[in-house]
Amino acid sequence: MRDKVLNKYVYDFEEGNATMKDLLGSKGANLSQMVQNGMPVPPGFIVTTKACVEFLEGESFLVDKIWPDIQKAILRMEAKTGKKWGSGPTPLLVSVRSGAPVSMPGMMDSVLNLGLNRDTLEYMAEASQNRRFALDSYRRLIQMFGEVVAGLSPDLFEKVLDEAKKKNNLLYDYQIPAQILEEIVAAYLHIYESHTHSSFPYDPWKQLKMALAAVFKSWNNPRAITYRNLHSIPHNLGTAVSIVSMVFGNLNEQCGTGVCFTRNPSDGSADLYGEFLINAQGEDVVAGVRTPIPISELRYMMADMFNQLVDITGSLERFYKDMQDVEFTIENRKLYILQTRSGKRSAEAAVRIAHDMVQENLIGKSEALTRVTPREAELLLHKQIGSQVDVPLVAEGLPASPGACSGMIVFSPEAAVQWNDEGKNVILVRPETSPDDIHGLAVAEGVVTSRGGMTSHAAVVARGMGKPCVSGCEELFIDVDEKVLYGESLILKEGDIITVDGSNGRVYAGEAPLVDAKITKELSVFLQWADEAASLEVWANADTPEDARRAREFGAKGIGLCRTEHMFMAQDRLPVMEHMIMAPDKESRLKDLELLKEMQKNDFADIFREMSGCPVIIRLLDPPLHEFLPKENVIRQQLFEMQREKESPAQKKKILEMEAVLKKIEMLKEINPMMGFRGCRLGILHPEIYEAQIRAIFEAALLVLGERKAVFPEIMIPLVGLSEEMEIFREMVDRIAEEYYKSTGIIVDYKVGSMIEVPHSVLVADKIAKVADFFSFGTNDLTQAVFAYSRDDAESKFLRAYLQKGILQENPFHTLDREGVGEMMRLCVKKARETRQNMSLGICGEHGGNPESIAFCHIIGLNYVSCSPFRIPVARLAAAQAALGFIN
Amino acid sequence: MRDKVLNKYVYDFEEGNATMKDLLGSKGANLSQMVQNGMPVPPGFIVTTKACVEFLEGESFLVDKIWPDIQKAILRMEAKTGKKWGSGPTPLLVSVRSGAPVSMPGMMDSVLNLGLNRDTLEYMAEASQNRRFALDSYRRLIQMFGEVVAGLSPDLFEKVLDEAKKKNNLLYDYQIPAQILEEIVAAYLHIYESHTHSSFPYDPWKQLKMALAAVFKSWNNPRAITYRNLHSIPHNLGTAVSIVSMVFGNLNEQCGTGVCFTRNPSDGSADLYGEFLINAQGEDVVAGVRTPIPISELRYMMADMFNQLVDITGSLERFYKDMQDVEFTIENRKLYILQTRSGKRSAEAAVRIAHDMVQENLIGKSEALTRVTPREAELLLHKQIGSQVDVPLVAEGLPASPGACSGMIVFSPEAAVQWNDEGKNVILVRPETSPDDIHGLAVAEGVVTSRGGMTSHAAVVARGMGKPCVSGCEELFIDVDEKVLYGESLILKEGDIITVDGSNGRVYAGEAPLVDAKITKELSVFLQWADEAASLEVWANADTPEDARRAREFGAKGIGLCRTEHMFMAQDRLPVMEHMIMAPDKESRLKDLELLKEMQKNDFADIFREMSGCPVIIRLLDPPLHEFLPKENVIRQQLFEMQREKESPAQKKKILEMEAVLKKIEMLKEINPMMGFRGCRLGILHPEIYEAQIRAIFEAALLVLGERKAVFPEIMIPLVGLSEEMEIFREMVDRIAEEYYKSTGIIVDYKVGSMIEVPHSVLVADKIAKVADFFSFGTNDLTQAVFAYSRDDAESKFLRAYLQKGILQENPFHTLDREGVGEMMRLCVKKARETRQNMSLGICGEHGGNPESIAFCHIIGLNYVSCSPFRIPVARLAAAQAALGFIN
Repeated sequence: MRDKVLNKYVYDFEEGNATMKDLLGSKGANLSQMVQNGMPVPPGFIVTTKACVEFLEGESFLVDKIWPDIQKAILRMEAKTGKKWGSGPTPLLVSVRSGAPVSMPGMMDSVLNLGLNRDTLEYMAEASQNRRFALDSYRRLIQMFGEVVAGLSPDLFEKVLDEAKKKNNLLYDYQIPAQILEEIVAAYLHIYESHTHSSFPYDPWKQLKMALAAVFKSWNNPRAITYRNLHSIPHNLGTAVSIVSMVFGNLNEQCGTGVCFTRNPSDGSADLYGEFLINAQGEDVVAGVRTPIPISELRYMMADMFNQLVDITGSLERFYKDMQDVEFTIENRKLYILQTRSGKRSAEAAVRIAHDMVQENLIGKSEALTRVTPREAELLLHKQIGSQVDVPLVAEGLPASPGACSGMIVFSPEAAVQWNDEGKNVILVRPETSPDDIHGLAVAEGVVTSRGGMTSHAAVVARGMGKPCVSGCEELFIDVDEKVLYGESLILKEGDIITVDGSNGRVYAGEAPLVDAKITKELSVFLQWADEAASLEVWANADTPEDARRAREFGAKGIGLCRTEHMFMAQDRLPVMEHMIMAPDKESRLKDLELLKEMQKNDFADIFREMSGCPVIIRLLDPPLHEFLPKENVIRQQLFEMQREKESPAQKKKILEMEAVLKKIEMLKEINPMMGFRGCRLGILHPEIYEAQIRAIFEAALLVLGERKAVFPEIMIPLVGLSEEMEIFREMVDRIAEEYYKSTGIIVDYKVGSMIEVPHSVLVADKIAKVADFFSFGTNDLTQAVFAYSRDDAESKFLRAYLQKGILQENPFHTLDREGVGEMMRLCVKKARETRQNMSLGICGEHGGNPESIAFCHIIGLNYVSCSPFRIPVARLAAAQAALGFIN
Repeated sequence: MRDKVLNKYVYDFEEGNATMKDLLGSKGANLSQMVQNGMPVPPGFIVTTKACVEFLEGESFLVDKIWPDIQKAILRMEAKTGKKWGSGPTPLLVSVRSGAPVSMPGMMDSVLNLGLNRDTLEYMAEASQNRRFALDSYRRLIQMFGEVVAGLSPDLFEKVLDEAKKKNNLLYDYQIPAQILEEIVAAYLHIYESHTHSSFPYDPWKQLKMALAAVFKSWNNPRAITYRNLHSIPHNLGTAVSIVSMVFGNLNEQCGTGVCFTRNPSDGSADLYGEFLINAQGEDVVAGVRTPIPISELRYMMADMFNQLVDITGSLERFYKDMQDVEFTIENRKLYILQTRSGKRSAEAAVRIAHDMVQENLIGKSEALTRVTPREAELLLHKQIGSQVDVPLVAEGLPASPGACSGMIVFSPEAAVQWNDEGKNVILVRPETSPDDIHGLAVAEGVVTSRGGMTSHAAVVARGMGKPCVSGCEELFIDVDEKVLYGESLILKEGDIITVDGSNGRVYAGEAPLVDAKITKELSVFLQWADEAASLEVWANADTPEDARRAREFGAKGIGLCRTEHMFMAQDRLPVMEHMIMAPDKESRLKDLELLKEMQKNDFADIFREMSGCPVIIRLLDPPLHEFLPKENVIRQQLFEMQREKESPAQKKKILEMEAVLKKIEMLKEINPMMGFRGCRLGILHPEIYEAQIRAIFEAALLVLGERKAVFPEIMIPLVGLSEEMEIFREMVDRIAEEYYKSTGIIVDYKVGSMIEVPHSVLVADKIAKVADFFSFGTNDLTQAVFAYSRDDAESKFLRAYLQKGILQENPFHTLDREGVGEMMRLCVKKARETRQNMSLGICGEHGGNPESIAFCHIIGLNYVSCSPFRIPVARLAAAQAALGFIN
């Protein structure tokens, strides 16, 4: 029995079913299943993938070995169809179609109309009462056979056809009359013979054998190999080959052919969707010569056929429990189903269909949650470029923040603000951006940078704001001074319109049509199911009340990272911040800090109001102080200009002040600022800054508690590497909390925790956990340190080359590196929970919005992931899929 | 019995021995031991440390509780001395001396001459036949008691004494005659009474009780607490108190007092060494008023005493098996030993004594190896500043490279070279140094920088060259353009002489006297023993044949790190390197690389010759390419000047070239270069550079093998983070090796290994080990990444503050951080040996020369440490001490 299966290479459709995709290919298995389900499929059989693999492994005699089985199968086909192979009165014609276990649309070859020769042609003409049809079928066979089996160029045949049409003033192929087709067939046969030095095979068996071998071989054509590489499909699967008796939709007006979807693949609504043509062949529907008719019209033209189609497709959807993409042909008012498969759909449709199928009890919620990819969830929230792009490509960079937008080029944040005030849509184009540019980023539609990677400032801020961004567009030369953008072949200037596609990393000149995003009620319900399935919570990285509101709308259960530094970057605050940094003594500094404290207090209060009832993790000041001072070259330039003019006493004072700032900048300068004087290192050396921030948090909490709103502030210390650091801040926060309690009598329910972003902190996590209530993995910096890859430099300098060469499989700033960074996280979780069993652990790095990384966070037992508001739906879905084991 | 011991607080000397230091204090235990050994010690007893601890814990009634025991002990003392406590004819006087388990010289208090009062004074005068002596003893008691017990200021007493001397035209205390001493005693008693509002205690028992309590309390005086903090001595040990019957060296010419060492503490030679005074008290020897007489003279003055002293001290040394520092007093031609302890000695003496004692069979080799500290081994190799420094201090910085030197200030490497050519000794003073300054560093005596820490470029290079360096002298402002050095209170200019003490981090104006270093034959033998005891081998970091030769002289067993980049920095090579980097195409680059290969080949060949028979690890190019290009501002300045002149065609070409270099610099610029495009990342993107280096290594090896010398090249890949990187280079080296084998037929015995300096490499060490023959920990970079402390910035920006605040106990760039970096190393060793059981593992970071770090390397099972040639003796000793468990 086992031997029999092992040596069985040929299956009639009646012998297979949908579970046998590996052996029969996806198409063949589905055809078999339809036969099992009693559906009208033209008789046929399948040569297995195993045959293909053995054939390609050098067993070329394999075709001979299985030939008797194939011959028997053809005989059975004759019996089922009542047609005769290679003879009349009604000759049996077959198609030989490739069909791999995994869909590889259009990558491999097929040959139709096999079985025709100068004799069966005559029988066909007679049987169909249509000589033109028979000749046209023969013409197609010769061309297809010539191309696929003999490897002849399509041009050879097209040229003959084109000349014939030109000579006879004909526009379309279907207009060519029978007598001219006779000439064309003769010319085709001549082409075949003169190029292959052999006559076109007359014997249908020979045709079939040659076609089968050719289709096997097409598994390894360069196109297919590339496709498999791109889609990580193993190269040793092989293709099955379906041999199907031909049915014809182009015999007469009682015939037709079409494609239909069981639901609308664009919006997901539950109507039969598709199109067809009367008296046509499959390829005519696709070719676009004749305009196909909507499937709903079939009801009026052939009601019986339409009803049968509705029955069958409905039954197929119920059987497969998924939306089906079905090909059919009507031959003399008889319906044949030629193929069924799960249909491709838009992101919106994916959600709607998953949602509806649960409502229809077709699938369960868990199953539904696997029917939408996180990538699709993401697409739903961003504008997209339409399918037709007819504007020129300027450059390609990194797809740093998804979505698309159009706007006028501006080269400075100042111009961005001014033009925006004038009501213009602008796109900020910079070599790179810094926190100084935040006001420009805030008003721009999107951002393009020539430097920086997926976690560059521009990319992070853009993702946070949900704005499209293409970063690291190294082909571009951006001359900010001259306000000119040099592309590979285009030069653009300020005010020129470009379109940015942050989903694909492309920048176009001019305005490309955009498609709107929608948040449907189906999505909302769908994500509810996700939350029920997930064990990870999804929190948000949000720095402003607006971000917080959006985060809550998108379903965030808390704020996992509120960066306080952006608050200091606002126009009205930067001067105070600068003054504080330049303060000559502690007294003066404390005065500035008092001012800043009041400002931050209101910011925090607004965020607490938005997030009432939810935890809000506020990270104390993190970036190096020099980021709050003007740029060195700007001051130098100003100084240079002022010194040239005649000096007034006021100017002299100004010059002295500016020189002091310059000196401070010089003092703060660092060779590797990422590993420098920032994070809690600032708080250790300037405790008054952290004190002021902590006071602002407590005062804001007390304010909002006074409004009878629940407030759960959590104070997070950045860049902790040592337990001794954390002890200092634990003591500081507890002391300040005690003070406020003493003066107000109100208890604020606060926590104090630490970022885990310095490798050293992982190794002493057990000690830090003694004084920290929670940990939050800052995987951007952690990845940076573990790999020693500068976030600001690595991607453009060498990381891209590493990815291209396959040294790295993934960009570790994009997808969490499990082997290194992940091992450190795992170690940290172990150590932390050894000390504090129920410790709250989360992630607030960029990986918190990446599905694979979220799966890893689930596996190692984190409590939450925190990501940009716009990635929350993605993260909720990914968290559910991780819990379901669907991604891991 | 046990209760008896628990409640025993008072021990006669006869009851103790040298092993009881914890209970009796170091001094008391040694006095007891001497009594056990039958040596002439004045009778006495000890109140235990336990008593002190309990007293200080609040049990103040303790003194009363133990008083009966003390009274009994005094009575026994009366019996032994034949003197009477508080009475005549010969009154018993005692000293009450502090003495902790661990030596804390001068930190706590003692009171002498207790038992004197207005009546016993008269007996003393009578018994000694010396009224002046008796009065002087009483005067001393009142002052000492006043200070120690009543807490009076010494000034009160000194003032009276000074006025009396002035009034009587006397210069020294010992010249004051008895009648004036009578007045002084009266004045002293008045001072005591008026300030304490009580009379000076007459009762000797009361004097003793008060003195005992005061000495107990002196355990917690601020001076003592600070000392214990500095020397990591626990605060709960307490001090024992020795109560010793007084003997007097100042009764007459048959008396005397002195100090002697059993060996010369300066050079270690085995002669009795010391000095004494006739008719004097102990403090007179130290006070420097009378010049003491060398101990050898005693032979001629009191031969019996001298012979007895030689016998006793010799016996003490043999008993303690260490050089002893002995205090003695001769009272009426009777010798008393008052104290013995191990003597302090110079580094040179330490080695000589340890060596000689082994030869004398006094101690074994293992014991000898613990008698010299690694710090002492280090001091032996560097010039030192003499003990007298009479030149002004300019500034203090970090003690970056030990040793001292003097020279003229120069502010540029060019000036250093030029002045050196003119025969001047120069010291390079720079804000910081870079590889560009290497020629200046090479000719300078020493280096001073205002920026950078213990592992800054200047510090590392200086240590490698064995030159003194003070780095991070932040108080200095160095104006390189104006050639002026601004200190806190001094301004120096080019050509001014300064002295640099790299052992203490001090810079002096002017020339301070220096002491020469010696490598003695004793040191050589001593280090041989170290090698025999150690399991770690000591290799050297050496980049040149000269370094290699020195390393071998100092006992290196191999080269653990030969940096190849310094070879490219030479004057004749930098232009070729620059040309290679600027090469417009691969062909041109390959031509430059061929040139560089030939140069490196000769360098390698010379090193192989020096290290014949030993492994030589050569690290392929590591630093970022921009380090080999001119500095940006230098080019800009040159361009600016050239553009102002009239342009000739030649100049135009030059300008274009310079602009190209500028563009390249811009392209190579990185925000965090330490985590950037360097190390093997260069080798991945520019394999031709690594190929050329590998070829140079093989060609050099073949050359030297042809000279019938054994060559063991080991090729080390820097900055490996991924096994995929290592696989590429493994394949590259093996391929090239195979090529050379095919063309020459000669097998080169080579290895290929990896630096471990990127945290990621630790986490995948098992995978990397599959393709690496050895690992070498680059702990400088590893520490940098694990802490996220930029080596270039951290020390001056915040690390010093962290150390001052005690957040860090040690500078992790100086002493290996075991908790974090060490854990990573341990993990790496485990993973590496899982894959390759006998894998050779070493360390080549700066920690390889640090004794504590070496101990850790021993503990985790490394095979070797590699350090600068000048640290090799230190490392050899530390490796031995680690193996002996003496440091861990």
